[in-house]
Amino acid sequence: MATHPFDRAIGLTAAAEQPNTWHGHSSPDYWNMVGPFGGTTAATALQAVLQHPALLGEPIALTVNYAAAMGEGPFTVVAEPVRTNRSTQHWRISLMQDTSGEAIMTATAVTAARRETWGVNDMPMPAVSPPDGLPRLQFSTSAWTQRYDMRAVRGMIPRDWNGACQGGDRPEEASLTQLWVRDDPPRPLDFCALTAMSDAFYPRVWLRRAVRVPAGTVSITTYFHASSQQLAACGDGYLLAQARGQVFNNGFFDQTAQICSAAGTLLATSSQMVYYKE
Amino acid sequence: MATHPFDRAIGLTAAAEQPNTWHGHSSPDYWNMVGPFGGTTAATALQAVLQHPALLGEPIALTVNYAAAMGEGPFTVVAEPVRTNRSTQHWRISLMQDTSGEAIMTATAVTAARRETWGVNDMPMPAVSPPDGLPRLQFSTSAWTQRYDMRAVRGMIPRDWNGACQGGDRPEEASLTQLWVRDDPPRPLDFCALTAMSDAFYPRVWLRRAVRVPAGTVSITTYFHASSQQLAACGDGYLLAQARGQVFNNGFFDQTAQICSAAGTLLATSSQMVYYKE
Repeated sequence: MATHPFDRAIGLTAAAEQPNTWHGHSSPDYWNMVGPFGGTTAATALQAVLQHPALLGEPIALTVNYAAAMGEGPFTVVAEPVRTNRSTQHWRISLMQDTSGEAIMTATAVTAARRETWGVNDMPMPAVSPPDGLPRLQFSTSAWTQRYDMRAVRGMIPRDWNGACQGGDRPEEASLTQLWVRDDPPRPLDFCALTAMSDAFYPRVWLRRAVRVPAGTVSITTYFHASSQQLAACGDGYLLAQARGQVFNNGFFDQTAQICSAAGTLLATSSQMVYYKE
Repeated sequence: MATHPFDRAIGLTAAAEQPNTWHGHSSPDYWNMVGPFGGTTAATALQAVLQHPALLGEPIALTVNYAAAMGEGPFTVVAEPVRTNRSTQHWRISLMQDTSGEAIMTATAVTAARRETWGVNDMPMPAVSPPDGLPRLQFSTSAWTQRYDMRAVRGMIPRDWNGACQGGDRPEEASLTQLWVRDDPPRPLDFCALTAMSDAFYPRVWLRRAVRVPAGTVSITTYFHASSQQLAACGDGYLLAQARGQVFNNGFFDQTAQICSAAGTLLATSSQMVYYKE
């Protein structure tokens, strides 16, 4: 079976005789305008943790900061378990691409051995049409957008860049996007895929303003609410993803996001801070 | 004028001849049950960044991971500017307390020189009663809770630990807390105070379940949406803070929070992942 493009994009090889160190290579399959899609970079950070021989448990939290654009070519990831407790483990991660040794990405992660407890989902899945009857989005010529089969529910990228808010009238819906998403080609869900999907929304400021200003994620945090078994049980089916902005001010806006399975299980929640110009 | 207890708690002294390194001491004024209030620990991480001679701009994003409980005594903070761009700067921070050198806190921060742009607040302030007519909360005997003057609006800590949800009936209100908060004694607002306040909510699982299970923040991310001038303009007045949980599952729940000025400016948004038992 051929390797899936996502697995090629986040593929890492352990460095010989250098603990905590992996080598990877940027992927043309997920190319964005000036570098690879940030979602794959975030997934690569997590992948290093998941491949580490000292790993305890499964991912709980991941924060990735994009310090500089990744260029075409090889890169190095360092993932160190800085503290291992009885049931939690804390990770520091960085990604370097040139001989300067300067990080182009910094990250932290928490993994944990979960125990069964009481639980409840207070973000019930919104009532939306199933994906099969909805047209597939064609919203960009960037390679990475071809790697996701997205079906629009609401809040799609504006057709008219006319400067008038194209989201809902109510503040909480003014920058709200809801869509079905899965990998293309389809791929069984795992933590790395979920990490990448958390960063797959186009900039909220475009929907909010209908002005196509330059924008890019500066920092993203994703929390994982399901086990690897629960993710595997989603197979390669569509997930429902939604995102909205809370406040836009002087060059940065925040975005909160949720991703749930077609069966309504909330798999991940995410927040990010995004730079925008003008 | 006497030093405010918060300034004592987050006070740092630059280490002689060790770049990026500061010394501090745990504070009895903000003591929680088994260590200092995590909000002051997070604020200490930011304080090291703000005192750094190479600092560019003002805080945009801060993620703090609590790896182990802080004990009584001195500690060391290391804050390194790992990448400085034209208008953003990326920081890696850690806090150590014993001779093992193992981190008890890891953190990352992004600072930036902001420019004036278009902006909008899509989280308008909820309509609530002003703080002066509301009784002050007395919800714990821990020292740190005495350092905040909190006025209950809704979703206060249960009086009856009867296992029945004491939040609202709708899912989005089931774990919602809204309160007015300011430092006690009053203290002019700044980024460090706002950081600490982002972690000042009692565990959502207590409100949601009315069962007092052990719980503690594992990772918190705060985004800053105002300038130091805007914070200073808030003086030492009350801020309106709200928090809710989205999903509770197998030992961890997430919390999203917003803090706005009495005038309705959204100053900070925050999310955290919290461990809970049972």
